[in-house]
Amino acid sequence: MNNPQLDSNGQLKHLLSIEGLPRSILTRILDTAESFAGVSEREVKKVPLLRGKTVCNIFFENSTRTRTTFELAAKRLSADVVSLNVGTSSQAKGETILDTVDNLIAMHADMFVVRHSQSGAAHFIARHVDPQIHVINAGDGRHSHPTQGLLDVFTIRRYKPDMHNLRVAIVGDVLHSRVARSEIHALTTLGVPEVRVIAPKTLLPPEVQKLGVQVYHDMRKGLKDVDVIMMLRLQNERMTGALLPSPQEYFKCYGLTQEKLELARPNAIVMHPGPMNRGVEIESIVADGPQSVILPQVTYGIAVRMAVMSILAGNTEPA
Amino acid sequence: MNNPQLDSNGQLKHLLSIEGLPRSILTRILDTAESFAGVSEREVKKVPLLRGKTVCNIFFENSTRTRTTFELAAKRLSADVVSLNVGTSSQAKGETILDTVDNLIAMHADMFVVRHSQSGAAHFIARHVDPQIHVINAGDGRHSHPTQGLLDVFTIRRYKPDMHNLRVAIVGDVLHSRVARSEIHALTTLGVPEVRVIAPKTLLPPEVQKLGVQVYHDMRKGLKDVDVIMMLRLQNERMTGALLPSPQEYFKCYGLTQEKLELARPNAIVMHPGPMNRGVEIESIVADGPQSVILPQVTYGIAVRMAVMSILAGNTEPA
Amino acid sequence: MNNPQLDSNGQLKHLLSIEGLPRSILTRILDTAESFAGVSEREVKKVPLLRGKTVCNIFFENSTRTRTTFELAAKRLSADVVSLNVGTSSQAKGETILDTVDNLIAMHADMFVVRHSQSGAAHFIARHVDPQIHVINAGDGRHSHPTQGLLDVFTIRRYKPDMHNLRVAIVGDVLHSRVARSEIHALTTLGVPEVRVIAPKTLLPPEVQKLGVQVYHDMRKGLKDVDVIMMLRLQNERMTGALLPSPQEYFKCYGLTQEKLELARPNAIVMHPGPMNRGVEIESIVADGPQSVILPQVTYGIAVRMAVMSILAGNTEPA
Repeated sequence: MNNPQLDSNGQLKHLLSIEGLPRSILTRILDTAESFAGVSEREVKKVPLLRGKTVCNIFFENSTRTRTTFELAAKRLSADVVSLNVGTSSQAKGETILDTVDNLIAMHADMFVVRHSQSGAAHFIARHVDPQIHVINAGDGRHSHPTQGLLDVFTIRRYKPDMHNLRVAIVGDVLHSRVARSEIHALTTLGVPEVRVIAPKTLLPPEVQKLGVQVYHDMRKGLKDVDVIMMLRLQNERMTGALLPSPQEYFKCYGLTQEKLELARPNAIVMHPGPMNRGVEIESIVADGPQSVILPQVTYGIAVRMAVMSILAGNTEPA
Repeated sequence: MNNPQLDSNGQLKHLLSIEGLPRSILTRILDTAESFAGVSEREVKKVPLLRGKTVCNIFFENSTRTRTTFELAAKRLSADVVSLNVGTSSQAKGETILDTVDNLIAMHADMFVVRHSQSGAAHFIARHVDPQIHVINAGDGRHSHPTQGLLDVFTIRRYKPDMHNLRVAIVGDVLHSRVARSEIHALTTLGVPEVRVIAPKTLLPPEVQKLGVQVYHDMRKGLKDVDVIMMLRLQNERMTGALLPSPQEYFKCYGLTQEKLELARPNAIVMHPGPMNRGVEIESIVADGPQSVILPQVTYGIAVRMAVMSILAGNTEPA
Repeated sequence: MNNPQLDSNGQLKHLLSIEGLPRSILTRILDTAESFAGVSEREVKKVPLLRGKTVCNIFFENSTRTRTTFELAAKRLSADVVSLNVGTSSQAKGETILDTVDNLIAMHADMFVVRHSQSGAAHFIARHVDPQIHVINAGDGRHSHPTQGLLDVFTIRRYKPDMHNLRVAIVGDVLHSRVARSEIHALTTLGVPEVRVIAPKTLLPPEVQKLGVQVYHDMRKGLKDVDVIMMLRLQNERMTGALLPSPQEYFKCYGLTQEKLELARPNAIVMHPGPMNRGVEIESIVADGPQSVILPQVTYGIAVRMAVMSILAGNTEPA
């Protein structure tokens, strides 16, 4: 099958999903991100790798946090950034997505960062664009959010470099998560031997075992001896839905408390993609505690996005 | 009469409308745009002509597409760009337009790109500003949208350089169009011998013939042997109005189909200012077909806006 | 008492309010602003003092005018600027202010410009951030708006350099003003011997005399022989409130007319923080007249904000 993310030489052309990326590409992104992790700590946080390039954020769905991370990553690479909140403009005038994209291509955009509420939107755009243009999926429906998955794996690798010897638990709403699938693929590809998912049946996709994970419904059993705990965000709209009894009930069963954390390995790390619902998915004392790497995830998110953009643009040395 | 767009030496001071621009200025803008057309195709799409200058987009009426093209043009000239959606801010606090403008002048803005729903707003602001400040009309009511007119003429000149030997048809809602009048003036000034307008009587201004055009109500007759077909956008709000029977009916009479296109010269070009209503003004097979130059219009729009800004700022060499 | 704005060496770490700033710091800001006042008038209005730094505008409350001045100031210092309208994004997802701030810190923001409708918000954030990060209060509730206060004092010093010999009147809604308190402190600290407030009792805070001002309810008496008249903005929401009879009535008693202006010293200057309600706080002939320095206030606002940002970043020479 033709992989839409790779060019004929097997180089990364678009970043649409972690599924389908060979281990060599994953590793290259993580290694490149490593070299960028230092740039954001410098006095002058800029490198000229994308100078004179135009990065176009097309957000068909609003997400200030994600837009900001991509905007910062692009600016630190010295790109010009144009952000379009498309939901409120051209679409209202009856223009199709492809006409909007074609117009931006005609303006000589070099890279598109696409956020859309429908699965497959970024793939759809990537199939359509000219060969010199690169598309990054910044979240499409519940399908994929690959830079989030990559920054999670990058964070794990930074804190637990021996990935062949890890036990990782993913906790919460796997069914509606944009990132859980991506993470499972990335972890498996990078050689993590044991990935667990911990969730009520109503928040698990059917046949989730086929992804190569072990399923737990009891959080206490699932956290036993793990090295990494990845909490998933519970969307507000789920909380009042039929799938769950109440936020309080959810917290009781699947919220991460200090007491439950102690079932994991003593130096286990705690992750969350943000924004957190404190007291629903996670207790504040854990979120702010010594085992939490939630803020380093955000920091590494910039480095990972800089890495992806610079690889797509054909440059990877931060200089 | 004093021309508000020219200074005492006859140099361009503001771009408010194509009407009143002498042929020499029109030609200078087009020639300068020619030199910028290459910049957007470079690896590094930036020239330092407006470095350290502040370009202020004041949009009293929202238009993501137009704002984006001006923003990109200004950034590729290395200007700092500040965009204000004024409709939703100071105006709500009871401030007058001139107070808003005066404040931005006091902040040492160098150039204003103004979009307003009322005809004459850009002229009004241009009359008011200090002599060192330049105003570009980015669309005022149904009056004028000169950079759109200029990019259309630029596109025609690129594809049909011998303008003294052309037959151009403008099709659609001439009555409410911001650009039709501008284009007719530009084409006439540049020596195009035959400009036709094709529209139902209800969508033509009274005494349109006085602009020097030939009027057709039958599209098939009007398209006969033309070299250029400029389709106009049908505003959504017109479609349900009393002036038109229905979008389907409109398409039948004035929509551009492949079959109608074949009445024009074999190498005729097809233009549309966007955003398109596919199936209303134009058939998709024509919009995306080999004779369409709709996307090149967008590309040239950046070059033309860069040209206008750099001429106003007193620099024209892209370096 | 520990001053949250100063570091252990007495250097400016955050700008939260004018209260608590020693005279030496106030003077340093004003002197630095003096050196930046020229930068905005240059051909190239940029200095590289904040190159590679990230300035983050966090506006929990919308204010296009204030955001624009900070954005321009930061861009002219060559910083990268990211603006977040937080009211409409993360907060809606249930994230706390501190989580939002922590995320931006994790992205290696260097400076926060904070606007919030609640008093103390900027202080709250300043107490929380890492030591290398600087916070500027851009207006919190009715508490403080220190850069506005500073630019007002800067304007006065420019037009009336002998501050030890001045009589200043502050007119209007002192009770709800973000800036009146700041200005009174700044003026007193800089040695202005006589500060008057002129307002109806309902628009004065209790025990206003303790701030060291003279209170007048009769505008004609209060303006007698003053050198500086600082008009305050009347918030629209007050006009229909119970505290005031009507805008017309207010104008009659406390609006600045040419006739009342003539009671002040012949070369008195007239100031207003904007946006003005013409015909409510001030007559147009006065606002636009020869004694008005309302637009210079805006100009100096950029210089003062550049000065504050560059002092916080540890650089003060405009080069």
